[in-house]
Amino acid sequence: MSIRVLAIGGSLRQGSYNHLLLEQAQRQTPEGMRIEIAELSDVPLYNSDVQAQGFPEPVRRLAAQAAQADAFLIATPEYNYSIPGVLKNAIDWLSRVPEAPFQGKPVAIASASMSGLGGVRAQYHLRQVLIYLDVMPLNKPELFVSAAHEKFAADGRLTDEATREGLDKLLAALAARTLRLRAGEAVAVAA
Amino acid sequence: MSIRVLAIGGSLRQGSYNHLLLEQAQRQTPEGMRIEIAELSDVPLYNSDVQAQGFPEPVRRLAAQAAQADAFLIATPEYNYSIPGVLKNAIDWLSRVPEAPFQGKPVAIASASMSGLGGVRAQYHLRQVLIYLDVMPLNKPELFVSAAHEKFAADGRLTDEATREGLDKLLAALAARTLRLRAGEAVAVAA
Amino acid sequence: MSIRVLAIGGSLRQGSYNHLLLEQAQRQTPEGMRIEIAELSDVPLYNSDVQAQGFPEPVRRLAAQAAQADAFLIATPEYNYSIPGVLKNAIDWLSRVPEAPFQGKPVAIASASMSGLGGVRAQYHLRQVLIYLDVMPLNKPELFVSAAHEKFAADGRLTDEATREGLDKLLAALAARTLRLRAGEAVAVAA
Amino acid sequence: MSIRVLAIGGSLRQGSYNHLLLEQAQRQTPEGMRIEIAELSDVPLYNSDVQAQGFPEPVRRLAAQAAQADAFLIATPEYNYSIPGVLKNAIDWLSRVPEAPFQGKPVAIASASMSGLGGVRAQYHLRQVLIYLDVMPLNKPELFVSAAHEKFAADGRLTDEATREGLDKLLAALAARTLRLRAGEAVAVAA
Repeated sequence: MSIRVLAIGGSLRQGSYNHLLLEQAQRQTPEGMRIEIAELSDVPLYNSDVQAQGFPEPVRRLAAQAAQADAFLIATPEYNYSIPGVLKNAIDWLSRVPEAPFQGKPVAIASASMSGLGGVRAQYHLRQVLIYLDVMPLNKPELFVSAAHEKFAADGRLTDEATREGLDKLLAALAARTLRLRAGEAVAVAA
Repeated sequence: MSIRVLAIGGSLRQGSYNHLLLEQAQRQTPEGMRIEIAELSDVPLYNSDVQAQGFPEPVRRLAAQAAQADAFLIATPEYNYSIPGVLKNAIDWLSRVPEAPFQGKPVAIASASMSGLGGVRAQYHLRQVLIYLDVMPLNKPELFVSAAHEKFAADGRLTDEATREGLDKLLAALAARTLRLRAGEAVAVAA
Repeated sequence: MSIRVLAIGGSLRQGSYNHLLLEQAQRQTPEGMRIEIAELSDVPLYNSDVQAQGFPEPVRRLAAQAAQADAFLIATPEYNYSIPGVLKNAIDWLSRVPEAPFQGKPVAIASASMSGLGGVRAQYHLRQVLIYLDVMPLNKPELFVSAAHEKFAADGRLTDEATREGLDKLLAALAARTLRLRAGEAVAVAA
Repeated sequence: MSIRVLAIGGSLRQGSYNHLLLEQAQRQTPEGMRIEIAELSDVPLYNSDVQAQGFPEPVRRLAAQAAQADAFLIATPEYNYSIPGVLKNAIDWLSRVPEAPFQGKPVAIASASMSGLGGVRAQYHLRQVLIYLDVMPLNKPELFVSAAHEKFAADGRLTDEATREGLDKLLAALAARTLRLRAGEAVAVAA
């Protein structure tokens, strides 16, 4: 198998727990999967007047990465009981590029927060957004990393064993779903 | 192909538009698909004290039907900006039966209402419920039947052409998804 | 002050944590407030054909209680990532009675569950339902009782100190909002 | 009465229907109300590393406007079944400024879109966000402007009579709620 995953983090903060979670996913990547982390910091605010003059370069770069991906991993904080504007803004651009880069692809969702609820409210807003994009989110496992500040070491590594296992399961489920969808497609094409 | 679909309506009213929509789906059933309509009117209110003494007969019957289904079609009205208690109550029972009858199966969603919004608010609440049940809802098409009272004839047949086409597409997408999932499973088992 | 509160629990189970929470609220009631607990177990499944022949007696009784209440306290479990069908079904009936018993009144919301998330997903679905009913939910405090089985004693009393304080604050906020709304109304009427 | 309203639009497009709706609100402003329209185009992407070095000037300006407002009017498009990242990003900044400028204030919500659903999905996500900010959204009226391209003239004026009436009612309800809250506060302070 060979699965390219584009990982998207919802926070621009250096050392954000969600970014650390994506870097940890790179360390725990299952064999045959490759995880690349998207850069959202230079994506401008969405404006259809700007779009009319051509997609900005950071959006074109992100769209190309997303188009090449077989699957996605999104790790998002919860801001104000929803997903961050930063993440939503990137999605708003990507939903309009001609590549339709999310279409029909699997997505694994995680969230990390310092509170006890682990970002749960953000995940269901994200899932509603994904319906429109026609992506295929995994229902399970759901990964909510609560009290994130207690679960990463100073060097950024995830030290909480249960969360490491949860991440392993999430990535394994993403790989399995991607392969199963590919197999279903292959049969559908052959038929 | 042979696809058994269990259709679940969210309203108990005789002649409810959502029930008519399910009966219309039976008329427009694609070749190879068979649609059976579930009966919710005798399902008692969920109570885990009752469950502890054994699932009531109407729940057992519904669970058996659901377990035999390959896919689901849910047509629901919107009550108070969400799904009806009647529908949620049936799901609350079915989520606890040992058969886990929804697990991994595709679901097509429709809603009909007399208002202009066609039940849209109910559909996203239903989709959040389905995450927990690990069912695989179609993202598209989404069928919102607004002004339903103008779209059905006195004999209960759906006369609005655009809605008939929408229903055809929904059923075709449900069939395609079911077959594709089955193919993916077959390959996964063979591997 | 004199504030009548109707407390509505989302679970029919004897000894449900949400019911215990309502009984505890009765013990912690602020001076001047009286809390009555609603009975939902005999409310039939909503059916507009039945409604057309007259509201059933349990619904009429519930509607009368709700109409006399100045405010509401709802404690609900989370079933399948939403509110229980039992609770939604009661609301579906109450939304149609001529008294419009929720209209403009304050509501305090709590949820208890054995999981770590404390019913959070149920609360936001409930809040969307309440918009239609034009009730005035408190934004804060929000009370999520996680690991509920560790927080109540065998005799049903709430022993967790933080949760007791949370409940005190919730009831105090409900009293304050009710009085503030009443004062605003009085001035509006006088003007 | 004297009510200062800060109007916030969710789209940066020149001539967006939601911006036109806010300009129309300025034309239909009830006596005693003044509506100012916020500028979001120069608000940077939220980044807590940036915040740690001081709130950027556009955020400080917006925060000052919001702090002086007695009430808010938000008109938002629906992007990908939720609110735009642009709007959420502005809220993410405003939720962190020391002024807490939304706290306890009334908010009226509208949405305009070219589709038949009028932005309905965006409004309920916005309402969940507002819970955290402890703002007091009007439950009613809800203003969904569907087929917006048919309802504004070339000069940007709202020509659809029903929508004009809906906007009048929304502004009147916002004024009434603001005054009623103010009266309730006055009595509470006096007591």
